[in-house]
Amino acid sequence: MQEVILNLLPVTEEEKGEFAAIAPRAEHIYTSGSAVTAEELARATVIFGWPRPERLAQAKSLRWFQTMWAGTDEYAGHIPAGAKFTSSSGSNQVSVAEHILASLLAVCRRLPVYRDSQRLHQWKDRGRMKCVRGSTVLVVGAGHIGSTFAAMCQGLGAHTLGLKRTVHGPVEGFDQVFPMERLDDLLPQADIVVLVVPHSPQTAGLMNEDRLRRMKEGAILISSGRGSVLDQEALARVMGEGRLWGAALDVTTPEPLPQDSPLWDIPDLLITPHVAGGMRLEITRRTCVEMAQDNLKRYLAGEPLENLVEG
Amino acid sequence: MQEVILNLLPVTEEEKGEFAAIAPRAEHIYTSGSAVTAEELARATVIFGWPRPERLAQAKSLRWFQTMWAGTDEYAGHIPAGAKFTSSSGSNQVSVAEHILASLLAVCRRLPVYRDSQRLHQWKDRGRMKCVRGSTVLVVGAGHIGSTFAAMCQGLGAHTLGLKRTVHGPVEGFDQVFPMERLDDLLPQADIVVLVVPHSPQTAGLMNEDRLRRMKEGAILISSGRGSVLDQEALARVMGEGRLWGAALDVTTPEPLPQDSPLWDIPDLLITPHVAGGMRLEITRRTCVEMAQDNLKRYLAGEPLENLVEG
Repeated sequence: MQEVILNLLPVTEEEKGEFAAIAPRAEHIYTSGSAVTAEELARATVIFGWPRPERLAQAKSLRWFQTMWAGTDEYAGHIPAGAKFTSSSGSNQVSVAEHILASLLAVCRRLPVYRDSQRLHQWKDRGRMKCVRGSTVLVVGAGHIGSTFAAMCQGLGAHTLGLKRTVHGPVEGFDQVFPMERLDDLLPQADIVVLVVPHSPQTAGLMNEDRLRRMKEGAILISSGRGSVLDQEALARVMGEGRLWGAALDVTTPEPLPQDSPLWDIPDLLITPHVAGGMRLEITRRTCVEMAQDNLKRYLAGEPLENLVEG
Repeated sequence: MQEVILNLLPVTEEEKGEFAAIAPRAEHIYTSGSAVTAEELARATVIFGWPRPERLAQAKSLRWFQTMWAGTDEYAGHIPAGAKFTSSSGSNQVSVAEHILASLLAVCRRLPVYRDSQRLHQWKDRGRMKCVRGSTVLVVGAGHIGSTFAAMCQGLGAHTLGLKRTVHGPVEGFDQVFPMERLDDLLPQADIVVLVVPHSPQTAGLMNEDRLRRMKEGAILISSGRGSVLDQEALARVMGEGRLWGAALDVTTPEPLPQDSPLWDIPDLLITPHVAGGMRLEITRRTCVEMAQDNLKRYLAGEPLENLVEG
């Protein structure tokens, strides 16, 4: 049976040539998640990309689907029976890690407050700053993104501690890795706390008021991953008391953050609208394409697929 | 003759103990550049810190003065005859390098524009971003600060090119170093251009309109060092045409930047009021103190002093 590869990734002409070279006998269909037709879905044996989950029911011939992101929860219950389902775990880790670092350094140097002054045409020195060199960074969630970010911090001269559910040995980028149960006693040691855990029943509300108050005075909090991990009302109270140096949130509950949220107006709190990941960088796009090509070679050779979620 | 050490550095009690241990027979006077008296200046044989240049004429007994920053031009003609003069070159290189990196990443991720949205309580995705990983960074001025910053970029996965007046061999942090004459032909190769040269007749107006237009379309410009190096009017024109992705200036001409400057309102231009260096970080303060202590040991042992400018 001929493979029909429905490719919803944003690919270049050169990359189409690469796919053709990998699977010369397959039919290759290039379109997008929004333009794809019912007929194309019905004929596809392989799908790459990010179709709307409910449309996968139309993919009657599907044998393998690879989504372009790490997250897979939105497709739960939507994968046709018998089809394999793989993720692109790690596809945007550079993007998210650089965004976390950008936010952290911006808070250290008070760039949000300096930007506010700039809008008022004010040249005003705000005094003391914070520095990554020599600081202790605690990363809550030592997965792909946490590890990439921690390695960046090590390169800047920070001491890096990681927390993960189960510790099987060293993790790249971390000086030390601990099980998640150590959170409470590690919080007071960190100058910088970074939340990069996914949403789960275990992580919902993890960073509550008690834990925010366990942080060092003058410490910095960065929240990426999922908004549900952090108690936002508690953060507003703790920042209102001036206990923290500053914070940055790329994720909130709910999203969009409501217009009347008090978080918007906290001077040393930077808010970005869930833009750390996604298809914002060329490096992310290229990584998604390479992950599809690598797994396609395995699929055609009958080898086990990487990042298998189901099937 | 007994040494009288006039210490204008911001030192801790513990550090006073360290100075006493290094020079147990000396008289140690601790005060500040603004509180120091004429009598103290007249008695001092050694001065550490940052006194006003015109007051050094009162230091009749002076044999050695170490300023707390890298810059020494303000003291030209003010050092009493026969006294040695040393700088603390490198004392704030971590501070300036982290500020440049913070500004660069902020521009890459459009944090200034996101901050503007935040002030309006707007959750608005601005699409594409830039990334340091995989980019080519051209540092104009491969001195202490340039080298520290370039090493940070290498750690993030960038390719680093440095320019300096005379090239004597490799410089830490740089993949390649070139003489300043290569500026024109290297500019079109760089995704990121960083200006960290000091003010001099050679650097004034170095980054003129022609050179700004030699930069890659969509490149990023960061200016630290001295404002005179950059033609600001040309930058406003070039950015007005949308040729650059963004820019950040920590230095301007003049300083403060006049209220009616058009630079304040350019969306993807971040302005900070010459705050990259100075005594904003504990690490800077501590480095100044250590540099004074290290050179004091050399002075008392009759060894050549580090960072000698005069004498």
